Amino acid sequence: MSDCIFCKIIEGDIPSRKVYEDNDIVAILDVSQVTKGHTLVISKKHVRNILEYDDDLAAAVFSKIPRIARSVRQFDPECKGLNLLMNNEEIASQSVFHGHVHLLPRYESDKDGFGLKWETHSDDYTDGELDTIQESIQAELTKEENK
Amino acid sequence: MSDCIFCKIIEGDIPSRKVYEDNDIVAILDVSQVTKGHTLVISKKHVRNILEYDDDLAAAVFSKIPRIARSVRQFDPECKGLNLLMNNEEIASQSVFHGHVHLLPRYESDKDGFGLKWETHSDDYTDGELDTIQESIQAELTKEENK
Repeated sequence: MSDCIFCKIIEGDIPSRKVYEDNDIVAILDVSQVTKGHTLVISKKHVRNILEYDDDLAAAVFSKIPRIARSVRQFDPECKGLNLLMNNEEIASQSVFHGHVHLLPRYESDKDGFGLKWETHSDDYTDGELDTIQESIQAELTKEENK
Repeated sequence: MSDCIFCKIIEGDIPSRKVYEDNDIVAILDVSQVTKGHTLVISKKHVRNILEYDDDLAAAVFSKIPRIARSVRQFDPECKGLNLLMNNEEIASQSVFHGHVHLLPRYESDKDGFGLKWETHSDDYTDGELDTIQESIQAELTKEENK
């Protein structure tokens, strides 16, 4: 995709801080970091997001994430853990429409630029609604398996 | 693990709203939903989080997530996308220490209980610091490859 910033990075047309590369993925430091060591894992193939991944692409992208996560964490002894985040579609804060996974190292520090709004709504579901949702997802997954 | 709620769900000792199951994973509706359709993808093997996954476990868990994500999205026509989130260690909001991936459907609605604090710090890195971080991560990844 000629106008995609990640395709240009992968092609080497835009410089980047690459930390890992194999046949399927690159991992780069996000210089517009939200937390120190913020890293992006990007498929070389231009695919919009997880909703358009197939099984094999998901396996290729995510199988290397444990080792990348461990390696990102160790660069700073203050890093106590990390969030893995993939935003899929604009409503979910996706801004570059070439799928990418954020690795966000976390610190016990006020400088931490990442956080979650996390409001649970346990009371919002009725039993009937849960039945409906569960059956709907199961039915769709059966269709996916038969594809 | 006898005291792990997810192990009990996987064993069937605690009831759950299962939407998918194969040899490696289960996917269940999170009844303490943050957004409607909130789903958890959990490895059957008790592993703490992504930092302790190996390549194969990551491939097994994540390869089925695209189809689960598509199936979760379709149950409500108002769902316009979703976030994939995995919290690794307490600092990153992990509360159950049996690794799990959140799928969070997103809606154009005030009822949305999920959001991101996302403060970029582009100015915080010096070139020298970027060199150091990049080299440190690369060196660690080389060690991982030689394991």
